[in-house]
Amino acid sequence: MEDILNLRYALDTFYFLVSGALVMWMAAGFAMLEAGLVRSKNTAEILTKNVGLYSIACIMFMLSGYTIMYPGDFAGGVFASLSTLGSGLLGSSDNTAADVIASGGDTYYSNLSDFFFQVVFVATAMSIVSGAVAERMKLWSFFIFAVVLTAVIYPVQGFWNWGGGFLTEDFGYFDFAGSGTVHLCGAAAALAGVILLGARKGKYGKNGQINAIPGANLPLAALGTLILWLGWFGFNGGSELKVSDVGEANAVALVFVNTNMAAAGGLVFALLLSRLWFGKADLTMALNGALAGLVAITADPLSPAPLSATMIGAVGGLLVVGSIVMLDKLRIDDPVGAISVHGVVGIWGVLAVLFNNGEATFVGQVVGIAAIFFWTFTASFVVWFIIKKTLGIRVSEEEEYEGVDLGECGLEAYPEFTTAE
Amino acid sequence: MEDILNLRYALDTFYFLVSGALVMWMAAGFAMLEAGLVRSKNTAEILTKNVGLYSIACIMFMLSGYTIMYPGDFAGGVFASLSTLGSGLLGSSDNTAADVIASGGDTYYSNLSDFFFQVVFVATAMSIVSGAVAERMKLWSFFIFAVVLTAVIYPVQGFWNWGGGFLTEDFGYFDFAGSGTVHLCGAAAALAGVILLGARKGKYGKNGQINAIPGANLPLAALGTLILWLGWFGFNGGSELKVSDVGEANAVALVFVNTNMAAAGGLVFALLLSRLWFGKADLTMALNGALAGLVAITADPLSPAPLSATMIGAVGGLLVVGSIVMLDKLRIDDPVGAISVHGVVGIWGVLAVLFNNGEATFVGQVVGIAAIFFWTFTASFVVWFIIKKTLGIRVSEEEEYEGVDLGECGLEAYPEFTTAE
Amino acid sequence: MEDILNLRYALDTFYFLVSGALVMWMAAGFAMLEAGLVRSKNTAEILTKNVGLYSIACIMFMLSGYTIMYPGDFAGGVFASLSTLGSGLLGSSDNTAADVIASGGDTYYSNLSDFFFQVVFVATAMSIVSGAVAERMKLWSFFIFAVVLTAVIYPVQGFWNWGGGFLTEDFGYFDFAGSGTVHLCGAAAALAGVILLGARKGKYGKNGQINAIPGANLPLAALGTLILWLGWFGFNGGSELKVSDVGEANAVALVFVNTNMAAAGGLVFALLLSRLWFGKADLTMALNGALAGLVAITADPLSPAPLSATMIGAVGGLLVVGSIVMLDKLRIDDPVGAISVHGVVGIWGVLAVLFNNGEATFVGQVVGIAAIFFWTFTASFVVWFIIKKTLGIRVSEEEEYEGVDLGECGLEAYPEFTTAE
Repeated sequence: MEDILNLRYALDTFYFLVSGALVMWMAAGFAMLEAGLVRSKNTAEILTKNVGLYSIACIMFMLSGYTIMYPGDFAGGVFASLSTLGSGLLGSSDNTAADVIASGGDTYYSNLSDFFFQVVFVATAMSIVSGAVAERMKLWSFFIFAVVLTAVIYPVQGFWNWGGGFLTEDFGYFDFAGSGTVHLCGAAAALAGVILLGARKGKYGKNGQINAIPGANLPLAALGTLILWLGWFGFNGGSELKVSDVGEANAVALVFVNTNMAAAGGLVFALLLSRLWFGKADLTMALNGALAGLVAITADPLSPAPLSATMIGAVGGLLVVGSIVMLDKLRIDDPVGAISVHGVVGIWGVLAVLFNNGEATFVGQVVGIAAIFFWTFTASFVVWFIIKKTLGIRVSEEEEYEGVDLGECGLEAYPEFTTAE
Repeated sequence: MEDILNLRYALDTFYFLVSGALVMWMAAGFAMLEAGLVRSKNTAEILTKNVGLYSIACIMFMLSGYTIMYPGDFAGGVFASLSTLGSGLLGSSDNTAADVIASGGDTYYSNLSDFFFQVVFVATAMSIVSGAVAERMKLWSFFIFAVVLTAVIYPVQGFWNWGGGFLTEDFGYFDFAGSGTVHLCGAAAALAGVILLGARKGKYGKNGQINAIPGANLPLAALGTLILWLGWFGFNGGSELKVSDVGEANAVALVFVNTNMAAAGGLVFALLLSRLWFGKADLTMALNGALAGLVAITADPLSPAPLSATMIGAVGGLLVVGSIVMLDKLRIDDPVGAISVHGVVGIWGVLAVLFNNGEATFVGQVVGIAAIFFWTFTASFVVWFIIKKTLGIRVSEEEEYEGVDLGECGLEAYPEFTTAE
Repeated sequence: MEDILNLRYALDTFYFLVSGALVMWMAAGFAMLEAGLVRSKNTAEILTKNVGLYSIACIMFMLSGYTIMYPGDFAGGVFASLSTLGSGLLGSSDNTAADVIASGGDTYYSNLSDFFFQVVFVATAMSIVSGAVAERMKLWSFFIFAVVLTAVIYPVQGFWNWGGGFLTEDFGYFDFAGSGTVHLCGAAAALAGVILLGARKGKYGKNGQINAIPGANLPLAALGTLILWLGWFGFNGGSELKVSDVGEANAVALVFVNTNMAAAGGLVFALLLSRLWFGKADLTMALNGALAGLVAITADPLSPAPLSATMIGAVGGLLVVGSIVMLDKLRIDDPVGAISVHGVVGIWGVLAVLFNNGEATFVGQVVGIAAIFFWTFTASFVVWFIIKKTLGIRVSEEEEYEGVDLGECGLEAYPEFTTAE
């Protein structure tokens, strides 16, 4: 039995690490998606934001976020981390074989593999923000916000669902992998930023017209979407936390299938709707449809049958097209559609749990959505507001016109490709 | 022993899911490869086709294809799937721990992990088509064909090899991971489409000259090839279906090594041949050489020694260069070389089994090739023909000239990069 | 117990193969990084070099390198490989279940999975070279060097650390995954080539000025960096060689966390330094900072605590910025910064082991660095020199001016995007 427990622990830890690596890969997905959907003059800066926010998220979640979100796991948090400098304490404090055997299998993966999986999740939440504020926000103000969101704002509400807070199944709340906890959180933080930031120059005309600002490199946007699709198998698949027996392995397999089907459903229905509505098969809508399907199924990829998962994704795909149009009417300028994909559809995902999962109640899900949204939106608004009043959050009109690449990064993303803007 | 069987099942299911995720990733490979090899004015549309066909393949294979291909596995197929809406039946019908233990290990992975692996295979077959018909086919006609191929045409012949049909080892047919069943099938469907569609305007001159139409973005083509190379470790590696003991683990390791070596051999020999023949190290030939090596080894990556696998790949690499030149002489216009890579080299792959595998017979392999080709080509030809006579399959001359991106998708892939075509 | 040993072997082999696939994926990372950092006129050629060198590395390491590096494992080497043509000997010579059980677990993975993991490492070492010599070296001269490095030069010094040579822990040398054995080796070979090759035309002015030559496609450079980051989880994570019990699983998890944190630390500190020093958040410095963090932690990702790993990476990030500036002052022209990232920071990585790992001694580490550097640099210099005096290593001035794409590959990477250089 000791041998079996050792092997199960090894398999579950390895599965967790592979899942985490796939979620880390989503950082590349967001980077490519956003780089493809902005104009070329703002591309290097959005890349810098993406790689920078991922790194900041990792460091801040290690220093404080993980301790806030999982207060029972690493006593002392930031101070413990600091004190372990060079000593390997965090490493040696992992579960021993004796612990695992004594637990009879209740301890079944490495604490560090859990940290790895969680840290890439917080980076995902922060990645949602960068797209919505693209093409006009100051780089370093964005990074300061990233520090606060990943160190404090995300972990506080992440604790509610996953760390021992009030959003339990007893409360009637169920969110498997984070349609609310990750995606709605990121979108709420983004919305607060966008409201304080304002729209890009030229996006909305004086007479109510809305000007399309096309992305410079759609193959990158498609690549980013497919990277996210792949990474989502880790995001949802790893959230089962365990794979080492027949029932768990079946559960993980169902999560993979449903995740894939929801994305497919979202893509097809967003494409059909854009064909019917706009007369054209809009690639960017199709890509956002796939992402919407993925966000929609994330709250519960384990209860629905695959056909049902396809439909949950399809509704997500329809919603995202309508939401993108609606937000533009409201003059909320979100260059990549992140608030629609992760916020509006994130809410749909949490509500869709009610169709298939008896543990969730309508009140529980609504209270969860409201709590996540109001906490994240309010806290983010305050932080963005303070930054705005001190450092400022928006680049100068001249810099916006010339592109933030030159102003913030001192280089161009494609120096040889564009002759004029 | 119950614990052991549980763990084996978990490991084999996890291995299957990881392999399937790698095959799903091949969708990104085809998308990037084809986006890199077409002109910029047709790039958004080919991306739309690629993400759309993947989604369609997933949905149609769930609704009908899987049932046709594996009639014993999901009784009722489309109707069963429809009836499970919201009920979780497909999920709960997976193997129980009791089943697994009662089987003594004969049942060793989740049914849903098998569905996931198979569904990404059918998407691969359909991906082959999109490249060959690029730059001139109507988007929605293509999608209608995708529905039929993935719902019916592919599954019917897939059944012959893998679902219980006549292409068994007793018959003398051996095709491990689908040089015939997947790649030749996709190429035969593509060939039927290309014949009915005709060549791109300007490709072939009146006096017999052949005009090169260079791809717009070769880094994407190289990226796509490397994505496919990586994904092929799942495609071939997962086709062993089992990894959970010494013999199976060794087999999977040999499949990985041979897959890698065949790609390397194909690339090097295609590069050398293009240097000797054309005087230049043609990157696109090298990339097609790698893909040819991969296709060639797919029919049997388990019998040859690694050096032998390298040579099987090398022959594939030489063949693909010759075939691309030959098809151009025949005025069969295949913008990305898909018919050569997957069709001509797919046939080579099935025949190459004879060198190393005693279970295959010459007659068996040839009959298998002929059956797959004629079924797929004929059925596809009929479907393409019906679409041609009803909706039409080719865009207008004007739309072809201006690019299908604007006509079909209403946007440009690179709006800032190109001043004139 | 037999069942347990079988399962452990299967899990460890599968983990090794997944790790190897991730390292293979690094080939795409180097290809995209380098394609993004050169000018568009030299992009197709650098892609050809990258896919070509990977293939050459696989073939030559199979034919001779593996035998030189691990003389005990495959008796006969090149001749054994040749003799196995078509016979499956290499396959059938893998461990039998009886061997594994008789070993009591000391034999715990497939020999072929080990070959797969090692072969992708040698390709990584060779990938380092292509960036440093970009934009001016003859393609086929480069490939000839690739043959010699991967067949002989790398394996000889690889043997010292991993194959049974003198760089043992008894000697006081410790290099877990190859900051020295892989990265410094690649950088030393690159430095020898760059010295013999000279700088690109126009890089250094007569009056000591240094002209920036910006890369043509920074999204590709960012993508390449993120691919390498992901692949490094396999590079370092797989180097533990075993995952199948509690202690090993914890070790692999710690390696994943430390690898990730070091990259994050390197990126943030390189970005901060470039902001302070140059006044701009230089994206290319940030990317090189992440890679520097990864190289720095590679020599020992298993001893430090995560905060300490972050700091080791941060020092790497600071060093790489300084080194890139310094090498430019020395007129050593390295278009992608490969010598700084892999060489200077590789040395830092080997020395940083001393902070956390009692098995390493200062003398041991320094002797190891010196031995690897002098062997690789000297042997490479001789080989480059012979090639220079026979075939030549540098393209003509005219070809350099027009771009090596047209001269070497006969095509353009972006035929529609650039009107003038």
